[in-house]
Amino acid sequence: MGMTKRDFLRSIGAVAGVGAAYHTMSALGLLGPAMAQATAPELPLGSGYGKRVVILGAGISGMTAAYELSKAGYHCTILEATNRAGGRNLTVRGGDVIREIDNRQWVDFDQEDHLYANMGPARIPYHHRAILGYCKEFGVELEVFTNDNRGALFHNAEAFGGAPVTGRQVMTDLRGYIAELLAKAVSRDALDDELSGDDKERVLAMLTSFGDLDPDHLYTGSGRSGYQGEQVHAGVSPGSLNDRLDFSQLLKADFWEYKLHFGHFLNQNPTMFQPVGGMDAIARAFRARVGHLIRFESVVEEILKRPEGVRIVYRNQRLNQEEAIEADFAICTIPAPVLRDIPNDFSAETQAAIASIEFVHAVKIGLQARRRFWEEDHAIYGGISWTDQDITQIWYPSNGYHQTKGVIMGAYIWDDQPGQGLRFTRMTPPERLRMAIAEGEQIHPGYTDEIESGVSRAWLNVPFQKGGWPRNSEAPPALLKPDGAIYFAGDQATALPGWQEGAALAAHAAVEAIHARVTAG
Amino acid sequence: MGMTKRDFLRSIGAVAGVGAAYHTMSALGLLGPAMAQATAPELPLGSGYGKRVVILGAGISGMTAAYELSKAGYHCTILEATNRAGGRNLTVRGGDVIREIDNRQWVDFDQEDHLYANMGPARIPYHHRAILGYCKEFGVELEVFTNDNRGALFHNAEAFGGAPVTGRQVMTDLRGYIAELLAKAVSRDALDDELSGDDKERVLAMLTSFGDLDPDHLYTGSGRSGYQGEQVHAGVSPGSLNDRLDFSQLLKADFWEYKLHFGHFLNQNPTMFQPVGGMDAIARAFRARVGHLIRFESVVEEILKRPEGVRIVYRNQRLNQEEAIEADFAICTIPAPVLRDIPNDFSAETQAAIASIEFVHAVKIGLQARRRFWEEDHAIYGGISWTDQDITQIWYPSNGYHQTKGVIMGAYIWDDQPGQGLRFTRMTPPERLRMAIAEGEQIHPGYTDEIESGVSRAWLNVPFQKGGWPRNSEAPPALLKPDGAIYFAGDQATALPGWQEGAALAAHAAVEAIHARVTAG
Repeated sequence: MGMTKRDFLRSIGAVAGVGAAYHTMSALGLLGPAMAQATAPELPLGSGYGKRVVILGAGISGMTAAYELSKAGYHCTILEATNRAGGRNLTVRGGDVIREIDNRQWVDFDQEDHLYANMGPARIPYHHRAILGYCKEFGVELEVFTNDNRGALFHNAEAFGGAPVTGRQVMTDLRGYIAELLAKAVSRDALDDELSGDDKERVLAMLTSFGDLDPDHLYTGSGRSGYQGEQVHAGVSPGSLNDRLDFSQLLKADFWEYKLHFGHFLNQNPTMFQPVGGMDAIARAFRARVGHLIRFESVVEEILKRPEGVRIVYRNQRLNQEEAIEADFAICTIPAPVLRDIPNDFSAETQAAIASIEFVHAVKIGLQARRRFWEEDHAIYGGISWTDQDITQIWYPSNGYHQTKGVIMGAYIWDDQPGQGLRFTRMTPPERLRMAIAEGEQIHPGYTDEIESGVSRAWLNVPFQKGGWPRNSEAPPALLKPDGAIYFAGDQATALPGWQEGAALAAHAAVEAIHARVTAG
Repeated sequence: MGMTKRDFLRSIGAVAGVGAAYHTMSALGLLGPAMAQATAPELPLGSGYGKRVVILGAGISGMTAAYELSKAGYHCTILEATNRAGGRNLTVRGGDVIREIDNRQWVDFDQEDHLYANMGPARIPYHHRAILGYCKEFGVELEVFTNDNRGALFHNAEAFGGAPVTGRQVMTDLRGYIAELLAKAVSRDALDDELSGDDKERVLAMLTSFGDLDPDHLYTGSGRSGYQGEQVHAGVSPGSLNDRLDFSQLLKADFWEYKLHFGHFLNQNPTMFQPVGGMDAIARAFRARVGHLIRFESVVEEILKRPEGVRIVYRNQRLNQEEAIEADFAICTIPAPVLRDIPNDFSAETQAAIASIEFVHAVKIGLQARRRFWEEDHAIYGGISWTDQDITQIWYPSNGYHQTKGVIMGAYIWDDQPGQGLRFTRMTPPERLRMAIAEGEQIHPGYTDEIESGVSRAWLNVPFQKGGWPRNSEAPPALLKPDGAIYFAGDQATALPGWQEGAALAAHAAVEAIHARVTAG
């Protein structure tokens, strides 16, 4: 007599309780591992032999595709417009020269291992399995990147007299006020339709704990927000609790719009990582494996479908001559704002999709401080202070703790308020630094004297990039399928824009689709 | 005509707005730095010359006192009952032998730098300025310790069929339900007494953001909790959101009692640190500076006040003979459960204070796993999983990411439920391991096969310690003042029990009090 797995589980559940059923399911492999361990495609060795793929762009997506395809025997060529690999994965250090369309900056940081600025991607969440998998495979050492530091600051010019307040105060007090209000509503029977009698009691107990309410379910302040005076915590004797922040002022500040729960966003959750020594450790690890396939300073000038493949015309900038390459397939990772201006014979649907993608006007400004005043004066170790000014954020370094100097991210602008990115993009690099320092001064009085050099990157103004990342959270459907033999990749071809994980996953998808076509053929 | 600073500030405030007043106050030094930069006492060089201090206990507090007093010229002697410095600051590694009163354990971890277990203190919050100051001064390298990892698990045998759920799900859904309930109450005008019309609108907007509510202010699930399937986040295409956890089951689980907001506690806030290579890096750094002052294996047998100082009788265990030392002052860091059994002539008030201090029955169990299954199978990097079983917690290592093996803390028991610590203390070490592994199996099916060795520490059963840390959050007042020439230190003489910072601050307080008395005399 047949018994399905489901029947079997139900019988276990009935006899031994659901806990046993859970463990039995696990033992039977029905739950599987909680997460995919290997996200990279595993193509049969040699399965791509004799097939040529031209990859447009040596960013993370392009190099990922080349790496995976090469392992399967495909013959890959990467055309890269610039003289470096990595694309938006860019770490700058003292002595570097970086270019935008109409400016050039000399990076004047001291030359120490911890004094660098990640001007593109800068963090990796724990669940980005493809990128973390490559870090593991390539031996890229990781350290924790801190997003949510409760000692960092929230600043709004209109709130609390313009004085910054610590994250621990804002978060604790907001939770306290929310809990008190909800406890009042529950006690007034305003939610009896929603809550059973038992649940009512449990909700009150939960809120007391959630908001650190007093026995009358009132929020009168909490040790979670810290103590008054220079010593934040209790010492030899207990101190006096911080006063509560005024609820009405908290509501008028912009903190709660997203900054207060930034770490709750899935891709900003702790645990976050950064590679030790700079994010470009990942780009360098890929380049060590696929660098021989890259033709640098090769600017794509025309993308053409052929009955049996593709033809790419490009300018070899080193020789200043036009060249062309034909292949069975192309993987195009060129960012939409650049791609739409390259002559092509894409379908109307593809062209419309590419035209529709708008990139964020992201700006980052790295500043070297002569002294780690954030650690010394404020006990801020890593994390982010938020402000309603254009600079939006100040990031404190998640490395080099207790060293003398440090590089902070003095602005990370992503158009939280419309126009912020454009305003900074249109400034000259020295103007950007002046403005970032002036705004930082509002958060850290004395800041101006602490900063000794800086560098900015306005991605809209960067050749062959022309923007930060797609503003929409989903790619247009036309980019998720090939146009002839041309496959699209890069984070713009995913629902994970702005993340290296998106770049890698798009590459994997293109690689798998090409493999399926080759195998079917 | 005189103008006080306050008048001046008021005039600035009136003209230029409070923001300007804030910055002027800061420029005038009225706000001061946000936190004390140096918390260690700075005694005049040579001010202690000719004065003798005997310090009882070579833990963090005793060594801190000896270090600071020696710098000022005091002649210090530390009596330490065991053969090691550090007290509860204990890191174990492969090859170590550790003792309890009636057992001895050989630590069988592999000998690699990242395979260790901090059996006592294991984390340092960003605002513990004294300990962090010593780390900086002594060059103890720090790395981030993760408390709050949203990919780690919450487990309650009675909730969700006994299946663990991720932190991101629990936190996101609880916030969502709280926000929805409060939004309903606000919309039903149940809180009109509390909120002005403007604030009502702001509260609804705030809750929508706080809980990720839909436009009707309902919580229907959130991308913050992750997506279904093996890939937690959106990929090439967006996935399907996780289903919400059932609110009623969430309320019945114990998560919200404190585990869910553990990182909101002031001393558990991010950013947290651990020394690279083990917490005993701090003990070793102190020992390198004051080790020559320590008489090891010297068990205090009598503490006596003298008209002009103190007399300490102790047994030199190496020579098996009784010895005595006289000094102008003593600083006693011996834990209360041990101290109360040492003959003394303390005042009745002091004796009563010492007798009143009850220590937590803390137990830690370190387990070496043959494979970092938490990273490979679950993308858990550091952080804590919580359970309602006796083991209470599983800590995943905040170091050695992507290495092959790892040492997890398979139990950290602090009497969350009464009796948990005692139950484990009374077991033999092999029984403790078996029980910890059996309970861990409920959270990670297959756990039993992954663990290859372990070590436990039941602090109640440790000679010369007899407990974890004081259960009460404040010291009895009698321990905050000297009894004759005897000063009390250790974390038990503070409102910060269980923290090395308390140990250091108590030492600073004793040092400063002795200095004041010497200077006055």
